[in-house]
Amino acid sequence: MPQGVPPVVPDDGLTTRQRRNAALLAVHTGDGKGKSTAAFGMAMRAWNAGLDVGVFQFVKNAKWKVGEETAMRALGELNQRNGLGAPVDWHKMGSGWSWIRHGDQTEIEHADQAREGWAEIRRRLAAQAHDFYVLDEFTYPLAWGWIDVADVVQVLGDRPGRQHVVITGRRAPAELIDAADLVTEMTKVKHPMDAGRKGQKGIEW
Amino acid sequence: MPQGVPPVVPDDGLTTRQRRNAALLAVHTGDGKGKSTAAFGMAMRAWNAGLDVGVFQFVKNAKWKVGEETAMRALGELNQRNGLGAPVDWHKMGSGWSWIRHGDQTEIEHADQAREGWAEIRRRLAAQAHDFYVLDEFTYPLAWGWIDVADVVQVLGDRPGRQHVVITGRRAPAELIDAADLVTEMTKVKHPMDAGRKGQKGIEW
Repeated sequence: MPQGVPPVVPDDGLTTRQRRNAALLAVHTGDGKGKSTAAFGMAMRAWNAGLDVGVFQFVKNAKWKVGEETAMRALGELNQRNGLGAPVDWHKMGSGWSWIRHGDQTEIEHADQAREGWAEIRRRLAAQAHDFYVLDEFTYPLAWGWIDVADVVQVLGDRPGRQHVVITGRRAPAELIDAADLVTEMTKVKHPMDAGRKGQKGIEW
Repeated sequence: MPQGVPPVVPDDGLTTRQRRNAALLAVHTGDGKGKSTAAFGMAMRAWNAGLDVGVFQFVKNAKWKVGEETAMRALGELNQRNGLGAPVDWHKMGSGWSWIRHGDQTEIEHADQAREGWAEIRRRLAAQAHDFYVLDEFTYPLAWGWIDVADVVQVLGDRPGRQHVVITGRRAPAELIDAADLVTEMTKVKHPMDAGRKGQKGIEW
């Protein structure tokens, strides 16, 4: 609640405004639905607030989640054409990271692709390239040991300026949870697949 | 996972395709963040899939959640202008439901406004006005007894055609959870307000 009164006022020498405007590290984890959709819902807010949005999807199969990609790209084009909102930059691992020439990486393994994704995010954080980052399904390469969690926590902790970062995926490592400001666990209470129903377009992707 | 194999195949006489395409009733509840943002993330998917989106916000203060409203309205305008995606229709209680003339309701109490919102949703469901409904913060008028839960469950259970409905808010009544196909509980693990930080634009609204 934007108008809410925080239960604790820390003795950190910051004004309320400084504290309010601090960069946020958010993690959406758990086995339930809504981790990525909530991150993209936040990205809509960020877009509207004029925050430059950078999305990095650590998914194997790039055909998923086309819905939010198309919608967010459309919002990004509205910014280019009409000046509404903010720019949107979208990259996914499954189709080959878009900043790498296509021929370069047909033989690259998934673990290497994930590491290359994180290396690019490091570069962008250092350059303050975006205001709002979505690292979608980023917990998996962390959980699988492809990317070093301690390095991620350090880079995120030291990131300059005011860059918000939202990380999604199951099994978020404890060190990442410790480092985050906002952590929500999405818990499955009931899922249509339990009743024998498969996913459908417009709902699952 | 769209390609997943469901653990149970029900003996309901439906084909996999019929079951897959069944209308979904989803509930996002719990005390954590992400209930509404995940619903609007789903609305982006629906928009991209060509599903007509109707949003009904049962919030007292209409100034909140401007981010997703502006973004979703922009997507709706892209549909009108360029034929992309699908129409988006957005209504909120706080500023007076948009289908009621403004002068009519300055004196209407919140409970009456909530009931009038539900009456309109009933009419639209009967008329199959939309393909994808977001009833944002709809659990509160249910929890407060302003709207009859049994009536809501019956109307939703009997809704014709293929109309998806997503309901958000804390303290979802047990009857609604029983009736839903997909229920996710957003659980707060950590929130910036616990550390004395207030909400900020682009993140909380």
